[in-house]
Amino acid sequence: MRLADATWTDADGVDTDLAVLPVGSTEQHGPHAPLGTDHITAHAVAAAGADAYSDGEVIVAPPITVGVSAEHRQFTGTLWVAPDTFRATVRDVVGSLASHGWDRVVVVNGHGGNTAALGEVCATITRQDDAYAVPFTWFDAVGDHSSDMGHAGPLETAFLRHTDPELIREDRVQAAAEDGADAWGKWVSHANLAADAAAFTDNGVVGDPRAGDADRGAALLDAATESLCALLAAVADRDTTAPLPHR
Amino acid sequence: MRLADATWTDADGVDTDLAVLPVGSTEQHGPHAPLGTDHITAHAVAAAGADAYSDGEVIVAPPITVGVSAEHRQFTGTLWVAPDTFRATVRDVVGSLASHGWDRVVVVNGHGGNTAALGEVCATITRQDDAYAVPFTWFDAVGDHSSDMGHAGPLETAFLRHTDPELIREDRVQAAAEDGADAWGKWVSHANLAADAAAFTDNGVVGDPRAGDADRGAALLDAATESLCALLAAVADRDTTAPLPHR
Amino acid sequence: MRLADATWTDADGVDTDLAVLPVGSTEQHGPHAPLGTDHITAHAVAAAGADAYSDGEVIVAPPITVGVSAEHRQFTGTLWVAPDTFRATVRDVVGSLASHGWDRVVVVNGHGGNTAALGEVCATITRQDDAYAVPFTWFDAVGDHSSDMGHAGPLETAFLRHTDPELIREDRVQAAAEDGADAWGKWVSHANLAADAAAFTDNGVVGDPRAGDADRGAALLDAATESLCALLAAVADRDTTAPLPHR
Amino acid sequence: MRLADATWTDADGVDTDLAVLPVGSTEQHGPHAPLGTDHITAHAVAAAGADAYSDGEVIVAPPITVGVSAEHRQFTGTLWVAPDTFRATVRDVVGSLASHGWDRVVVVNGHGGNTAALGEVCATITRQDDAYAVPFTWFDAVGDHSSDMGHAGPLETAFLRHTDPELIREDRVQAAAEDGADAWGKWVSHANLAADAAAFTDNGVVGDPRAGDADRGAALLDAATESLCALLAAVADRDTTAPLPHR
Amino acid sequence: MRLADATWTDADGVDTDLAVLPVGSTEQHGPHAPLGTDHITAHAVAAAGADAYSDGEVIVAPPITVGVSAEHRQFTGTLWVAPDTFRATVRDVVGSLASHGWDRVVVVNGHGGNTAALGEVCATITRQDDAYAVPFTWFDAVGDHSSDMGHAGPLETAFLRHTDPELIREDRVQAAAEDGADAWGKWVSHANLAADAAAFTDNGVVGDPRAGDADRGAALLDAATESLCALLAAVADRDTTAPLPHR
Amino acid sequence: MRLADATWTDADGVDTDLAVLPVGSTEQHGPHAPLGTDHITAHAVAAAGADAYSDGEVIVAPPITVGVSAEHRQFTGTLWVAPDTFRATVRDVVGSLASHGWDRVVVVNGHGGNTAALGEVCATITRQDDAYAVPFTWFDAVGDHSSDMGHAGPLETAFLRHTDPELIREDRVQAAAEDGADAWGKWVSHANLAADAAAFTDNGVVGDPRAGDADRGAALLDAATESLCALLAAVADRDTTAPLPHR
Repeated sequence: MRLADATWTDADGVDTDLAVLPVGSTEQHGPHAPLGTDHITAHAVAAAGADAYSDGEVIVAPPITVGVSAEHRQFTGTLWVAPDTFRATVRDVVGSLASHGWDRVVVVNGHGGNTAALGEVCATITRQDDAYAVPFTWFDAVGDHSSDMGHAGPLETAFLRHTDPELIREDRVQAAAEDGADAWGKWVSHANLAADAAAFTDNGVVGDPRAGDADRGAALLDAATESLCALLAAVADRDTTAPLPHR
Repeated sequence: MRLADATWTDADGVDTDLAVLPVGSTEQHGPHAPLGTDHITAHAVAAAGADAYSDGEVIVAPPITVGVSAEHRQFTGTLWVAPDTFRATVRDVVGSLASHGWDRVVVVNGHGGNTAALGEVCATITRQDDAYAVPFTWFDAVGDHSSDMGHAGPLETAFLRHTDPELIREDRVQAAAEDGADAWGKWVSHANLAADAAAFTDNGVVGDPRAGDADRGAALLDAATESLCALLAAVADRDTTAPLPHR
Repeated sequence: MRLADATWTDADGVDTDLAVLPVGSTEQHGPHAPLGTDHITAHAVAAAGADAYSDGEVIVAPPITVGVSAEHRQFTGTLWVAPDTFRATVRDVVGSLASHGWDRVVVVNGHGGNTAALGEVCATITRQDDAYAVPFTWFDAVGDHSSDMGHAGPLETAFLRHTDPELIREDRVQAAAEDGADAWGKWVSHANLAADAAAFTDNGVVGDPRAGDADRGAALLDAATESLCALLAAVADRDTTAPLPHR
Repeated sequence: MRLADATWTDADGVDTDLAVLPVGSTEQHGPHAPLGTDHITAHAVAAAGADAYSDGEVIVAPPITVGVSAEHRQFTGTLWVAPDTFRATVRDVVGSLASHGWDRVVVVNGHGGNTAALGEVCATITRQDDAYAVPFTWFDAVGDHSSDMGHAGPLETAFLRHTDPELIREDRVQAAAEDGADAWGKWVSHANLAADAAAFTDNGVVGDPRAGDADRGAALLDAATESLCALLAAVADRDTTAPLPHR
Repeated sequence: MRLADATWTDADGVDTDLAVLPVGSTEQHGPHAPLGTDHITAHAVAAAGADAYSDGEVIVAPPITVGVSAEHRQFTGTLWVAPDTFRATVRDVVGSLASHGWDRVVVVNGHGGNTAALGEVCATITRQDDAYAVPFTWFDAVGDHSSDMGHAGPLETAFLRHTDPELIREDRVQAAAEDGADAWGKWVSHANLAADAAAFTDNGVVGDPRAGDADRGAALLDAATESLCALLAAVADRDTTAPLPHR
Repeated sequence: MRLADATWTDADGVDTDLAVLPVGSTEQHGPHAPLGTDHITAHAVAAAGADAYSDGEVIVAPPITVGVSAEHRQFTGTLWVAPDTFRATVRDVVGSLASHGWDRVVVVNGHGGNTAALGEVCATITRQDDAYAVPFTWFDAVGDHSSDMGHAGPLETAFLRHTDPELIREDRVQAAAEDGADAWGKWVSHANLAADAAAFTDNGVVGDPRAGDADRGAALLDAATESLCALLAAVADRDTTAPLPHR
């Protein structure tokens, strides 16, 4: 059930404790893909997963459209909130969902920069609040595709070519590929020296967006949907009682 | 320009200092109107205003979909954030917009419960940050209609019948009207005794939703658009230098 | 009972759950009225209301003398706290009052700039703490007079001419009126373009202070007292149980 | 100049950089002395010091009437704010004073429980803000009297017998003395084992209030005034430039 | 230079902008390894790296001994701070180091649970403060060994057998191995379902501590030292100017 | 039991509710004593006290090595955290200790600048959390020696000459004494005019370090140990129930 479109009375009639909360960002995705890529994809996966889940209803909360994106701040149009703000928003919204009995929440994430803050806040919610929250980053759960992630690269471009083709500027993909970076900055001893993406990519792209056609996009959405359904099933079955002290 | 759909390179090509940021809520709107009413209407007004503004481009940020709605928390599906969280989000997003040169921002609001927090954060931004932010609540700026506001009442029902008719459950409007409240709780000496809407309305409605047909909705959108354009023009012309100390 | 003058043993002997907490500001009130106007008037109304309340004792807390007044910061002598600080103070003090059994608190306010923050913190207290708090702004509850409010204008000048005439500089009232502003800044589409009063008034005055003589001041105090008594009675009778979820 | 009673134009005419800010508490002071003792005495000392200072004008801010008093919370009528709230209030108010050019501020304190938080916030202000703030606790600066302080004991009782005799309940002083405690709780190895005064005094008194007559009160006010004047002179002369790094 | 052992005058004589700050935890490490494992190892690597760095002096700050370890809270003796506290400590300490000219800081980390919070705070410091901070988790930078990490498993046991053999309880290693877990809980769709380690390990161990002898420990320290030196060299050479806006 | 060196299983076998938490600083201690003086001495006293306590086991937490030391920031090598950070760390760590049943905690302090913040947080813990925390500053509890404290003066120099003689630079003690200050800055009316030690001491020393030989150091450690044991005994016996309201 898409919560934003439902009435409260309809929502009240649903018998479930499962919800998904899509979180993404509004940040540069190269010259060819939209700033909203990460929340568009997160929302698509969340909705598809909820639809595909066969063992009951799943509430789909409206997406959080701005995330932890300061690393892209030098590129025009990038919006960002402080990690504290992001955590507070997720915690408050999950708390609201839980107050209505939807207290097993998968936060469906479409932005790598959100991952650390999201993991932290989900653990805090599970430990301290009356809810169980689990983070799910869709592009980590698409099998072998995952290793191609990049930024505005093959996966995201493919995904949108499948779901929202009008948002990909096809006439710029070639240039996007040629002017993009091969890798996510300079790493030394497993530490990334750059705090900002602008230090290593001129047009914002990492990876080759030509390597992601619409068919691959369909496969990605399928894989992400399947992974999300599996996770929802596990979350539904999970004993969420906290472990006892090991005294 | 809808920021979420644009690329960063397109956004970079825009020559303006004006932006609109839609903020609303996800909260009960009676048995007949969707939980997303307030962010749907805010976004519609923001987009229409930006389109209608004739004196240059206006950036349209993606909507903030959850607001200060704890007053509706007893109704299933209502989501809310703490006022502190709401203010932090607005401040961070306006700061992002301003970092790209879009430093005159009208925050287009669709939820009465956001008003106090929004006024505070806009004043803080204008005084302390490198940006000028002005709150605009659309239903306060629709002429004589404004006095009919209520909640999920004539104005909001009319608005959605015009813009998103599939989201109004027509078969429930009659009951929504009959079971709703006439007024926003009990006021004594200009103080509202209720902290929660559930104290005075059983189905969440205040006012008569039958009094808002689609034609009225069209008129409301026109009026709000016109008001927003007038405000954008004034904001564009405003001398935003802070007054000097009156010593 | 004026709490600051009482001993703890006397306070302990009172059998009531009602308290009033006066909050105001220290901020410019033109060349003719004192910086303390707003806390002086709030305290006077709170004390008069407590005295006039006929259905039991009412505790009068000492006034909070500095409020949310950054909008007057360009005028020498204006003091202000951040809205967060103001809310924290009100919440802590109401919590203290409630700990002693005085858990129905009317916060008697004398400054328009406090209103938004005060409404927020009272709702927070009522929802989250073991207390019931209601904001009351005296000049909103004086009948038809209310529409004349302004700033350092007819109402406040009249009030002080009645209660503290030595604090009104009579020889400056004429100039105060002539150099003051007619309205609270420039409004476009129901949005105020100014973050600071100094943008629209040179001497800090809004409205005509000549229109408020001591008789009017007496009438104002009477009306405010009556309104406060009515509110105290309603607060005493209020069922403060939070509504149940509407599931 | 009493700021609350002055107009902004009068305040604007003052040529000084010195201000005093009285801070106290509203907390139990035994069965014979008022809950407001600490802010009444702080205000009296601040005002007397400002009047007596012969080398220019001193601004007297309105008193902060509630302080860090949780240690007295078991006694009815005691009000308290969290230390964070207290520090925020002092910092905001001193910042306001400094914005008008009164950037050398002595915070005149009447409550021992405020001392630690006050020292911290004054150091923070001096190091980080555009102001110089120094804490002054009057009963620490009255010569040999200081060692008799207690709580609602000889010093405070004497002081009020001199300045506000109607607030001392003379008929209860004998009992106050007899039922009070001799010392501030149980100390072991210079650590106080009690977090709350109620652990060691039944009526809230520490020390013998009979030992403080009005003449002693007059002497105390004189001594405190003289100490404050000496401090104001030193503060006026102080080079407030921060030391350079010792590299 | 070990900062804690040096005098300020000696510290003042050092000509460098490089510092290392060891951060770890105090948390369960099975029945055979000490609670302090993570700060002991972090400190050892930091000190060895500073000693081995051949291109100038490196300041070694004292270790932060408690970290983000709530996931181990069910095991007796585990200490933890909130992630906000951890970030504040790292930010304050790095700020102190930078104030003395040591403004290129590698934070040498010995605890996986610190990683997310550490990455966030280092990015914040680099973007907002006058310092450049890079996180380095030693066991991520020991070549092929890294894949064996576990918890109190082969790597940490080996490391301590080399550096602090008296802290490994050899007579319990066999049982530690037998009763430990093979993997870090149950993962579904790349999401970890457990918020606490006690959900998947009875004795706190993950991996086989028998697989880490002292020779391996020596190799680990060498590898970590080499990696840290390489990172220090890169940090010393890094152009830390923030990228310009890509307008 | 030294917690950092113990295993969780050993910690689990301890039957006590007593713990000590050493807190100090890393800050200048003149040209002759180490920056770590305050956490080295605090840790030594805590460990000696725990060892000497004859009535059961005492847990020794690892030391907090950085404290509230901004007052020494002009001297190279001084590290400091904000008071808020320090309080958060102490509160979180004491909360962790208490979660394991060690809920009577003496915080053993070696730095005067920590005292105010430490008293505040211990009171907060005792009042609001499930723990009882008492601050103990060792140099306040060494009898007549206490009056000689200074900074890097006779007491601290003596202490380290006894416990860590290699950390005292004997060849600089004479100069340290000659160039040091006699007193802790300029006091007027019991207020200290200096926010920073650099305002009154050129080399960081206050008092004469020559007056503290190793024998005196041994006596100091003995006295501090004895005082701590007495305090631990009192803490063990203390009825930690909060007093009831005095209604």
